[in-house]
Amino acid sequence: MNKGKTYDEINIGDKACVQKTISESDVYIFAGIVGDLNSMHINEEAAKNSIFGNRICHGMLIGSFISPVLGMQLPGPGTIYLSQNLKFVAPVKIGDTITAEVEVIEKLVKNKIRLKTNITNQENKTVIYGEAVVLPPK
Amino acid sequence: MNKGKTYDEINIGDKACVQKTISESDVYIFAGIVGDLNSMHINEEAAKNSIFGNRICHGMLIGSFISPVLGMQLPGPGTIYLSQNLKFVAPVKIGDTITAEVEVIEKLVKNKIRLKTNITNQENKTVIYGEAVVLPPK
Amino acid sequence: MNKGKTYDEINIGDKACVQKTISESDVYIFAGIVGDLNSMHINEEAAKNSIFGNRICHGMLIGSFISPVLGMQLPGPGTIYLSQNLKFVAPVKIGDTITAEVEVIEKLVKNKIRLKTNITNQENKTVIYGEAVVLPPK
Amino acid sequence: MNKGKTYDEINIGDKACVQKTISESDVYIFAGIVGDLNSMHINEEAAKNSIFGNRICHGMLIGSFISPVLGMQLPGPGTIYLSQNLKFVAPVKIGDTITAEVEVIEKLVKNKIRLKTNITNQENKTVIYGEAVVLPPK
Repeated sequence: MNKGKTYDEINIGDKACVQKTISESDVYIFAGIVGDLNSMHINEEAAKNSIFGNRICHGMLIGSFISPVLGMQLPGPGTIYLSQNLKFVAPVKIGDTITAEVEVIEKLVKNKIRLKTNITNQENKTVIYGEAVVLPPK
Repeated sequence: MNKGKTYDEINIGDKACVQKTISESDVYIFAGIVGDLNSMHINEEAAKNSIFGNRICHGMLIGSFISPVLGMQLPGPGTIYLSQNLKFVAPVKIGDTITAEVEVIEKLVKNKIRLKTNITNQENKTVIYGEAVVLPPK
Repeated sequence: MNKGKTYDEINIGDKACVQKTISESDVYIFAGIVGDLNSMHINEEAAKNSIFGNRICHGMLIGSFISPVLGMQLPGPGTIYLSQNLKFVAPVKIGDTITAEVEVIEKLVKNKIRLKTNITNQENKTVIYGEAVVLPPK
Repeated sequence: MNKGKTYDEINIGDKACVQKTISESDVYIFAGIVGDLNSMHINEEAAKNSIFGNRICHGMLIGSFISPVLGMQLPGPGTIYLSQNLKFVAPVKIGDTITAEVEVIEKLVKNKIRLKTNITNQENKTVIYGEAVVLPPK
């Protein structure tokens, strides 16, 4: 199997990202798995009359796109996820294309790495921002 | 449709929870949606040799179970999710039964509510803890 | 965990409902689970030439939305489902928003409850109607 | 496309069936689609203490296996489903293998067909029984 970058191989400023157009099926299946069938996510009629105007994606679904960046790319396979902070600052509509980007901002003691985690939409608007701390593979 | 509790109807100490036995299909479908196909989640052979000994669930999948508690129960429908902090402190194996519980710990200015968000497994061990801030429906 | 209403707590006229905009993924995944890959559900080209004019949802998929109302709300957790009658009276297209509503119409002997079960679309047209009998939790 | 049997081609006593071993993923995905996340279906810890002793399948999921028999085999493609009655008489556990069988019992006026619909498990025990009325293709 591939192995991710070790603590020593990681530098401040390193970046990685994933992108995806979020489909209705992504939202619906996620809704079913976690059981969040809130009308703002799955009821177009109700969503029309909400402050958003149409169905929006679950914040935690969009926030979860940080996970593949950390686990598959930076640091990559073998990474242990220690913490994640998320601020949900703008809605993501079904059909929006999101970019989840991480950037190494600090090398901590005990081999931990702190990263800025930022998610934007196709208009380059930040929808979620926060930070993660991970333990890279040895 | 149902409407959640307003700021005035919410009291410090209010609690709500959801429970689920996490299936292999939950993990696999979530892996596919977010694209985190890290071997520790979907490769039993590789996972055997990892520090966990078997496939474990994505931290963000388990953390996402806070979303239905906030969105469906407390405060409930109409809630706007503002932020979530997560500390991943123990692994969740496929087949574990998790309880995601939220508890109101502070009523903030501008109608915001702060909640403790704690996720435990069937042995009552905390696997993820953190805090959320939400805006209840008006 | 939450517990549903007991026989004594239920009154004739009590109502509950769920709503969902039915997505293509709902129809396709349901089709795959039960194996009903009838062209009227999953073949847009064939459906164009059918009496419906486009792909329609499986009657049993739509009828199944009565299950969460009974099992999660009225009576709620702990309910045992004894019977369900369904009349399929109008098609539901992909993208329609359905409301599944139950209403208690009779308290039977041996703690059983009879409910009217009615499903409508976004134009308030009945698409399925029928009755259920359940045994509420003790 | 294939076309199903017409009214004239159908005889009383005609039978058809489908069989499937119901997986945990079938139950979980169905639960998510319809939103019935009742603990008896998705919480093994709670189910252990229920009258069933372990997680059981949704009655409507199992009842839905009549749909592919009618729509794919007897009468087959082009059939319009008019009504279905279901009596849920025994639980189906995850891993059980069910057989959904239909048998033509009456040729009604206006080209309608009435069928007995019976679902059994791997021990040949009836779990659901009822009747359907359909309009075969012309």
